Amino acid sequence: MSRWEPNARGRLEQAALELYVERGFDQTPVAEIAKRAGLTERTFYRHYADKREVLFGDGTTLPTLLANAVIETPDSIAPIDAVAGALEHWGELIQERRAGALRRQVIIDANAELRERELTKLATITLAMAGALRERGVQEPTASLAAEAGIVVLKVAYARWISATGSPDLPQMIRESFRELKSVTAGE
Amino acid sequence: MSRWEPNARGRLEQAALELYVERGFDQTPVAEIAKRAGLTERTFYRHYADKREVLFGDGTTLPTLLANAVIETPDSIAPIDAVAGALEHWGELIQERRAGALRRQVIIDANAELRERELTKLATITLAMAGALRERGVQEPTASLAAEAGIVVLKVAYARWISATGSPDLPQMIRESFRELKSVTAGE
Repeated sequence: MSRWEPNARGRLEQAALELYVERGFDQTPVAEIAKRAGLTERTFYRHYADKREVLFGDGTTLPTLLANAVIETPDSIAPIDAVAGALEHWGELIQERRAGALRRQVIIDANAELRERELTKLATITLAMAGALRERGVQEPTASLAAEAGIVVLKVAYARWISATGSPDLPQMIRESFRELKSVTAGE
Repeated sequence: MSRWEPNARGRLEQAALELYVERGFDQTPVAEIAKRAGLTERTFYRHYADKREVLFGDGTTLPTLLANAVIETPDSIAPIDAVAGALEHWGELIQERRAGALRRQVIIDANAELRERELTKLATITLAMAGALRERGVQEPTASLAAEAGIVVLKVAYARWISATGSPDLPQMIRESFRELKSVTAGE
């Protein structure tokens, strides 16, 4: 980032989200995003590979963050609790960004291609966490079931968080949803 | 189906799966599928809306079947067991079609667009089962968690079933995976 473009990435993200809401994702050219942010197309492509990356990240940062959090969990912790801890850690990181998360979800929900991409992103995260559990010596199918169960909780907790009123606490909602999943699978 | 085209649907399906494996999904025109089946393109389109429908069905039959199975379950049965019962019922229906299921999975795994479509299909099934549970008076988030947990089990059990040797029993694998998910979420 040069000194002539303070917070270029953040400005591009904000401009992109505004335009995706106003015009729709498909109808927003990169040139318009750059223009609204007061930057050039070239600067856009220095920060993002394409229009989708503004919404989904680079496809490796989040899976890697969660996998590392799982790997760093002490072996004495049960697989499902290692997954829960990783997701709560992520919840803390994005807790302050709820307005942006809600706007992002509105954009994704309006577009079939983006919804499919979101599902693929979740599948990638699942595979990364299952792989991290196997690295810790967890056997299959426990590793996959724990990772998949984590994504179930993530989806439910995240949807509640972005649509809640007041100042909902995402890590707490994740913990609560894990407890609920436990009750549900126990047939309660 | 006219008497000149006995089992046209089955012949088209078999021809399509063979060609998708041999040439790849994208490289297989409908004309080639019809030709290999000894039928016309017009007949193909009488049975399938497009090439993807051979792999994924019409998008409503399976969600409806599972939702109906959930709705018909007595109210005394816990939500997770209603979902398990519906999936076991489906498992019985496809138990005899493992060779085709394996071939289908090889085709899907080889193509990013088809993998995304598969995830969307599973999401549609999840929504249908969660909706069926709500119709039975199950509250949220229990309804969504039970339906999502069912899909987790389905994915794990199905993957084991198609890759197993011998004569694996899908309904039994589904029951077993539900038990394993229960252990995993309990932190065992």
